[in-house]
Amino acid sequence: MTTPLGSGREWTDPLCPVARTVDLVGDRWSLLIVRDAMDGASTFTDFQQRLGIARNILTDRLRKLVDQGILTTSTLPGGKRHTYQLTAPGQDLFTLIVALRQWGERHTFTPDEPHSTLVDHTGTPLPQLRPENHRGDPVTAETTRVRKVGEVRGPA
Amino acid sequence: MTTPLGSGREWTDPLCPVARTVDLVGDRWSLLIVRDAMDGASTFTDFQQRLGIARNILTDRLRKLVDQGILTTSTLPGGKRHTYQLTAPGQDLFTLIVALRQWGERHTFTPDEPHSTLVDHTGTPLPQLRPENHRGDPVTAETTRVRKVGEVRGPA
Repeated sequence: MTTPLGSGREWTDPLCPVARTVDLVGDRWSLLIVRDAMDGASTFTDFQQRLGIARNILTDRLRKLVDQGILTTSTLPGGKRHTYQLTAPGQDLFTLIVALRQWGERHTFTPDEPHSTLVDHTGTPLPQLRPENHRGDPVTAETTRVRKVGEVRGPA
Repeated sequence: MTTPLGSGREWTDPLCPVARTVDLVGDRWSLLIVRDAMDGASTFTDFQQRLGIARNILTDRLRKLVDQGILTTSTLPGGKRHTYQLTAPGQDLFTLIVALRQWGERHTFTPDEPHSTLVDHTGTPLPQLRPENHRGDPVTAETTRVRKVGEVRGPA
């Protein structure tokens, strides 16, 4: 078993998986860097041009993402330039990025307003990602419950 | 049609739905406030006790979430205390919160480490949320592509 990400760090809320994820990637630039890495950005210049972000902030966020095991870095031949690639846990943030994208599509655009679109290999947009229970029924915050650590197991 | 959230504001990256969502909720405290609102928190004190957050930061984030249409606030009889409820777009962040939770479970905990769990009405944990294409095949960043605005439509 590999060591989990963030081992040894102080978590905001150690028993909650939502909070641990937010501690690692819950800021706007980190999320947008992960988005761009999934879309092919790999050099400092790639990220800088896409994000229009101050160099010192980008340097800081890239270093944190590497330290946290979301990105890995390697040096190009010549030794001057680094490239950044998503690690396996970083690639697995795809579900989160899709959830951010689809909520934005549903709630922040008018129907006729243009926006980028995530498409599969046939050029077809992805269907909406929706949480379901083990029977395949759609669920919401109202029909689910967070079972806390130490709580007696039981229905929602 | 209702007005989309964030209408009239300056977006970091206006053509990208991921970036618009991140502009509205992409900071650690906003995401954790939404998490707690889904889990029944509704008063300032509820949020303060669960988050252990400084009062001025909580006040700021609650106000922003109300301004952005994620939360709505109402005054309790007596006029002193406010309660906060998720709006319909706020409730629809459930998919995003589930994605944050499940990634955290997969990558930030050891197998024997305790954490809270999202369960359905029978007490059964939710299955993993995974993006699929319209045929129901699992997809990743590698097998999808972001089609930019203005680009000729075509396969990934």
